[in-house]
Amino acid sequence: MKLATLHDGSRDGRLVIVSTDLSRAVHAGDCAPTMQVAIERWDNVVGELQQRYVALNKNQLEDAFDFDVSQAMAPLPRAWQWLDGSCFLNHGELMQKAFHLDPIADADTIPLMYQGAGDDFLGSRDDIRLPSEAHGIDFEGEFAVLVDEVSMGCSTAQAMEHVKLILQLNDISLRALAPREMKTGFGFVQSKATTSFAPVAVTPDELGAAWSNARINLPLKVEWNGKWFGHPHGGEMNFGFDELIAHAALTRKLSAGTLIGSGTVSNADRAAGSACISERRAIEMIEHGAPKTEFMKFGDSIRMQALLPDDAELFGSIDQKVVNASIK
Amino acid sequence: MKLATLHDGSRDGRLVIVSTDLSRAVHAGDCAPTMQVAIERWDNVVGELQQRYVALNKNQLEDAFDFDVSQAMAPLPRAWQWLDGSCFLNHGELMQKAFHLDPIADADTIPLMYQGAGDDFLGSRDDIRLPSEAHGIDFEGEFAVLVDEVSMGCSTAQAMEHVKLILQLNDISLRALAPREMKTGFGFVQSKATTSFAPVAVTPDELGAAWSNARINLPLKVEWNGKWFGHPHGGEMNFGFDELIAHAALTRKLSAGTLIGSGTVSNADRAAGSACISERRAIEMIEHGAPKTEFMKFGDSIRMQALLPDDAELFGSIDQKVVNASIK
Repeated sequence: MKLATLHDGSRDGRLVIVSTDLSRAVHAGDCAPTMQVAIERWDNVVGELQQRYVALNKNQLEDAFDFDVSQAMAPLPRAWQWLDGSCFLNHGELMQKAFHLDPIADADTIPLMYQGAGDDFLGSRDDIRLPSEAHGIDFEGEFAVLVDEVSMGCSTAQAMEHVKLILQLNDISLRALAPREMKTGFGFVQSKATTSFAPVAVTPDELGAAWSNARINLPLKVEWNGKWFGHPHGGEMNFGFDELIAHAALTRKLSAGTLIGSGTVSNADRAAGSACISERRAIEMIEHGAPKTEFMKFGDSIRMQALLPDDAELFGSIDQKVVNASIK
Repeated sequence: MKLATLHDGSRDGRLVIVSTDLSRAVHAGDCAPTMQVAIERWDNVVGELQQRYVALNKNQLEDAFDFDVSQAMAPLPRAWQWLDGSCFLNHGELMQKAFHLDPIADADTIPLMYQGAGDDFLGSRDDIRLPSEAHGIDFEGEFAVLVDEVSMGCSTAQAMEHVKLILQLNDISLRALAPREMKTGFGFVQSKATTSFAPVAVTPDELGAAWSNARINLPLKVEWNGKWFGHPHGGEMNFGFDELIAHAALTRKLSAGTLIGSGTVSNADRAAGSACISERRAIEMIEHGAPKTEFMKFGDSIRMQALLPDDAELFGSIDQKVVNASIK
C-alpha cells in the first residue's frame, strides 16, 4: 500500500491512498484522516485502507482522482519524534580519514543516532529556504521507517513488527555549522535544517524482496542540478532498522509515529557515487589532498529517487530547489 | 493566567484554566480544547482565556471545579519540538573541573542546546519508569518557555514577544549513558529519558518582577526523598531565553508549541545546593577527590517547586517517584 498526504490548509494535511503506479489517489476516509491518526490506530485501520488500495489499483473507485505530486506534503508532515541514524559506516570512515578525526568508539557495534527536529517537514517539491550559502548547504539521501508504539526495552527481534511504513528523505544539512555543534557533544540544532520527504510512504510488502535483513535493498539515485551524483545501495547499511528501533527504545517508549532514519546512504564502491556532497568532498580530500566540489548555491536543485528492479519509482521522487530565505 | 491539561483519555488531554491559588479550574472551552491548539491560535484565544481566568479567580464561574493535580498531565503533554539548553555555566564548569574535561569552545558566547524527545512528557505525579538503576538515574530542575511560531532568523530583540507561557520541568537524565553519547558528538538519545513537568504553565505576567532580563528570577526548591537538596536561583542563567530562541531559529522556523528549556538551574554559591545529583557529585569530587552521593534508586522521590517571594508555588510542584519499569 502507498500513502501520501495532500495539502488541505491544515498543518497535518489529509491522508490519501495512492495507486502503485503513483497516478491515482483516493482519500483515506474518516478512519484515518491524517497519517498521524493512521499510525496511532494502525491495526484497526490497515485492513480498510488496504481494501481501498486494491480497489484503487483496479480502477474501481468512483471517488478516485489524479495524484498531483505538487499538492503532496511530506507523508507525515510533522512527527512527534524524528530520530536519525548514521548507519552506513563507510560514510563515517571517509569523513574520519579526510578530516583526520579520531574514530568514534564502538561505532561498529552501537548505532550512531541523533534526535532531530520533526515539527515541520518539507514536501518533495517544496523549496528549501535557507539564510546563507556560507553555512555549507548539503543534501543527504536517506531511507526511514515509521513505527507504531514501541515499548521501552523492545528487543531487536520484536522491533520488526513495529515497522508499518517506509519512507525516503533528504536530511538537509549545514556543514559549516556542524563541527562546532559536534564538538559540544550536544548534537545538531543549527546544523540540521528542515528535512524533506519523497511524496509517498509505502508498506514493507511494496518492496518485495528488497525489504530484507531489516534494510531497504535498493539503489538511491541522486542527481544534483540534473547531473548524476550517485546511486548508492541501501543494502550496505551496517545496522538494520530493527537494531535502530531497539537502540532508541532502551530507556523510553517510542510513541506511535516515531520516524527513524538510516543516515546518508553510502557504499564502499566509489563507482556508486555518494548521496551527500560532504562525502564526495571527503573522497576528494583523500584522493587529491583538497576538496574540489563546493556545497549547494541558491537556485541549485536536488533530485532523489529509490528505484525498484524494474526502474519504477517506489516513493515518487524528491525534486526541489534551494532558495534564499531573505528574498520573500 | 495559569493553564493546565487534564486527562480525558486522549494523548493531548483537555486544556483547563487554573486559578492563581491553584485550587479551582474551568475548561478552556472550544476555542482552545488543547494546549497545542491554544498556542497555535494564541493571539485569537488569549483574550477569551484571560477573561475566564479573571472570572475564575473571582469565583464567578458556575462550571468551575476543584483542580485535582493528580489528574493533570504535563501542561503540553507532547511537543512537536523540545529543545533544551545548558545555560547555567556554573554547572558546566563544575562538571569540567570534576571530570578534567576540556572546556567547550565559545560556551560563554554561544548557548549549549540539544534537541530532545517531546513525544511523551510525564505529568508532575507520574511515576518515572526506568529499566535500570545502573544507568545512573538523575533529576534536573529546570525552567522552560513555550513559544508561538518563530520565523527563521528571529533576532534576540524579536524573540521575547514569542514567549507565551513559562513552565518548570524535571529533565530526567541517565548519567551512565551520557558520556558515550556525548563523545559521538551526536547528542543525547538513550541518556535522556522522558521529561516531566510541573502541572501548571503560566503567562509571564504571573511572575511579576521575577520575569525580567528574559530570565525566571526565582529560586527552584529541590527535595530528594523529602530532604533539602538545593534552592538555586533562576536569575543566574548565563543566557536569556531570548538568546536561546534566536539561537534555535538561526536556520529554521520554530513551530508554534516549541518548548525551550534552560538546563539545570545552578548557582556559584555552594549554599544554594544543586538541582541535579551529578552536580553535587562533581562538587564532592572537587572537594573530597571522590563522589559520595549515589544516583537515584527505585522508590526514590523527587520534589521541585518554584517559589514566589510570598512562598506561593508558582507552577504547582513536581512530586514523583522512580519505579522499576520491569515490574508491571
